Amino acid sequence: MNLIRYGEKFFDEIEIAIYRKRNVGVDVELNQVALSSLSERTVSVIRGMKDKRIGIYVVDSDDEGEIRKGIEIAAKNAKNNERDERWQGLPGEQKYEDVSIDLDYSIKSLSPDFFVELANEAMREINKRDKNAMVAGGASGFQWFENRIMNSHGIDVLQEFGGTFFYLFVVGRKGNVVTPGIVDFEVRRDSKITKDAVVNSILEKLQYAYNVKGANKTEGNILIEPLALAELLYFTLLPAVNGERKVKNTTPLANRVGERIFSEKITIYDDPWHPMSTNPVIADDEGVAARRNVIFDKGVFKGFLWNSYWGNISGEGSTGNGIRSLSTGGIGIGAHNLVIEKGNKRKEDIIGEIEEGFLISAFQGAHSSNPDTGDFSVVANPAFKIENGEIVGSTVFMMSGNVYELLKNVEEISDTEKKIVMMGNGVFPDILFRDVKIAPVSK
Amino acid sequence: MNLIRYGEKFFDEIEIAIYRKRNVGVDVELNQVALSSLSERTVSVIRGMKDKRIGIYVVDSDDEGEIRKGIEIAAKNAKNNERDERWQGLPGEQKYEDVSIDLDYSIKSLSPDFFVELANEAMREINKRDKNAMVAGGASGFQWFENRIMNSHGIDVLQEFGGTFFYLFVVGRKGNVVTPGIVDFEVRRDSKITKDAVVNSILEKLQYAYNVKGANKTEGNILIEPLALAELLYFTLLPAVNGERKVKNTTPLANRVGERIFSEKITIYDDPWHPMSTNPVIADDEGVAARRNVIFDKGVFKGFLWNSYWGNISGEGSTGNGIRSLSTGGIGIGAHNLVIEKGNKRKEDIIGEIEEGFLISAFQGAHSSNPDTGDFSVVANPAFKIENGEIVGSTVFMMSGNVYELLKNVEEISDTEKKIVMMGNGVFPDILFRDVKIAPVSK
Repeated sequence: MNLIRYGEKFFDEIEIAIYRKRNVGVDVELNQVALSSLSERTVSVIRGMKDKRIGIYVVDSDDEGEIRKGIEIAAKNAKNNERDERWQGLPGEQKYEDVSIDLDYSIKSLSPDFFVELANEAMREINKRDKNAMVAGGASGFQWFENRIMNSHGIDVLQEFGGTFFYLFVVGRKGNVVTPGIVDFEVRRDSKITKDAVVNSILEKLQYAYNVKGANKTEGNILIEPLALAELLYFTLLPAVNGERKVKNTTPLANRVGERIFSEKITIYDDPWHPMSTNPVIADDEGVAARRNVIFDKGVFKGFLWNSYWGNISGEGSTGNGIRSLSTGGIGIGAHNLVIEKGNKRKEDIIGEIEEGFLISAFQGAHSSNPDTGDFSVVANPAFKIENGEIVGSTVFMMSGNVYELLKNVEEISDTEKKIVMMGNGVFPDILFRDVKIAPVSK
Repeated sequence: MNLIRYGEKFFDEIEIAIYRKRNVGVDVELNQVALSSLSERTVSVIRGMKDKRIGIYVVDSDDEGEIRKGIEIAAKNAKNNERDERWQGLPGEQKYEDVSIDLDYSIKSLSPDFFVELANEAMREINKRDKNAMVAGGASGFQWFENRIMNSHGIDVLQEFGGTFFYLFVVGRKGNVVTPGIVDFEVRRDSKITKDAVVNSILEKLQYAYNVKGANKTEGNILIEPLALAELLYFTLLPAVNGERKVKNTTPLANRVGERIFSEKITIYDDPWHPMSTNPVIADDEGVAARRNVIFDKGVFKGFLWNSYWGNISGEGSTGNGIRSLSTGGIGIGAHNLVIEKGNKRKEDIIGEIEEGFLISAFQGAHSSNPDTGDFSVVANPAFKIENGEIVGSTVFMMSGNVYELLKNVEEISDTEKKIVMMGNGVFPDILFRDVKIAPVSK
């Protein structure tokens, strides 16, 4: 608290946040290990207010002298800035949930060798089991985070967490056929990551992929896998539940709390403590107590996510969803671990009951979706054709629509779920949607 | 050389490169200093070959123990990789040019305060001199680099260099008119950076910008400013002179060395030691002696840029243009400081002699140009209309064409030049092109 005391000489309120990140991993390219690497970064962010004027300083260090210097610089920055009349103060002391979180500290001591072996074994097995397969890309490694958030209102919270990951991107060539790239991945909060699930899933899909089918339909039953679902929701739904957008009136959910928005099969929450979460935080990036926030309960919209700033302005208060950008030092709003509640049917059984339809592994172009309306226009690739309960080949098609219409049309949800860390942080099942409009992609 | 010796136990050849980068600066947003920051990064890259198998390890540290460990990991990576039969070896001992380069070491001790003051003074002056102006964004700071390249063939070279920068992005609002964003910037290899040039140039252009003119022409005389020129050439011409593309036959210049390609007014070279260069290196990222490479001499194509790998394959040898990617550890080909030779006419005089035409400050969309053909299709924005030798207002238009056609059509080149660091590294004058096809942008 020494540094906080020092900061109070210059500011009415001050926050000091220190982030340490360690990343060990291996990159795979064209059937070989292109490189392995160890990267470490320590960043301190000083955010102070004086007469409602903000001053921010970001430094790649946790050295006390550097932070003291940073406080002085932030104070000078603040002096020249304009008053923010909407500022209501940094958060005060919190009561943190007493979550029993099993952290696997052995992650931290995994060596690059471990991931090099994992990647090499996976590549050997893929090349052995399918002579036409080529591992085009991939990566494996771990990330470990240690964060400390302190402020002059009594917050001082230290947290650490992390996870391991493994993903591969495989292409098959047989005769004139080049398959779409087949991706699979695994993300874990422990060190028990193995090649098997990823290798088996990719090889199975690759078999279907050699058989390229046209998608000559304009409507279909569509089973969307977790990664594809995450891609779609990250750009359409996640922005729409951000409280800042409610205040600014740039979300279609602005005045719809309590309304039924989606199919009653859909329950969505932000849950940092879900068993698959790799960031089971007890506090957000401002030190506000994290919690499990239900966003949609059986299709009914329950409320927005807030940080302190926008939560204070709206009167709703923070929901513990303040997320810091390390490039600007500022606090935005985000989910810790967005969860769509899983269902109770096996994925194989869902596929088995589809007379005609498609399975979608990934989307392209989701980033150009419109968060103000929920409209999207994406390419399903790779996608697979299902006939009489079986996958019969790979295909590519366009899918244009609106996320609010789509999520009304839910037919089934799988009883399995997958941890995603690429498109936001979340845990998603597979969801079957009925009668979705699609269009073939012209080659 | 201790570490190199250690590496030779594992590899036939080994290279160890250590990069230190220090970045101090301030970010400006909406008329205030959004943050100041100090970032430092040290990265070591180990690249070893054993039986023509490559192993690469990248670590965020220059600690000897970490580098030793990295050598061992890189060796394991190499073991599992495939032989690269085209590999001919790391470069051997070099004779470096005895360049007398004035480095301004005082840059390194500039504080964030210095840049905060600079930005605040500039914003105050802009808001005072033009009540309708708003500084939408900007940045100021310095970068300082210290690199050491060592290999087992006797290379051991240590270099340092850096520069200061200041840029602002200003929008004007008057009545119903919102001007395009007016950008100007300065990059220096010393610490004598001031607000004046940037502020004056922006305020002058802003005056013209309030007067919005249509671009109802299909052809025109066009004076392209340094930043816009850099944007265009970075995506069209720079890839075309990359030796790797010659070997792979993906450049329109593949078999045209010695041919006249451009107007004889055009001379282009890569010159790390140009008086405005902020990276006056004596060695490239493999330790090969850097040099001044003439690429086009009075319009005649003189040759490609090469690193060792592709230079060895082609038989041309390296031209000292090996550039390392710190994310992959690998060596590509690039320019240190691409220079278009300036002309001998004052920019004001060039404008003064244009009866009807346009001045272009920046392009949008240059990144979607086609480096295989030189085709581009860009939006000129901000651009200004010139009538009877005077700038009369701002405008926006499309410009589609081909860089090889464009650079045949050179009318005049200004006697002033500007250092660019955003789109590659280079020094560019203003160039007047005759009868360029343009098209209005529909609103």
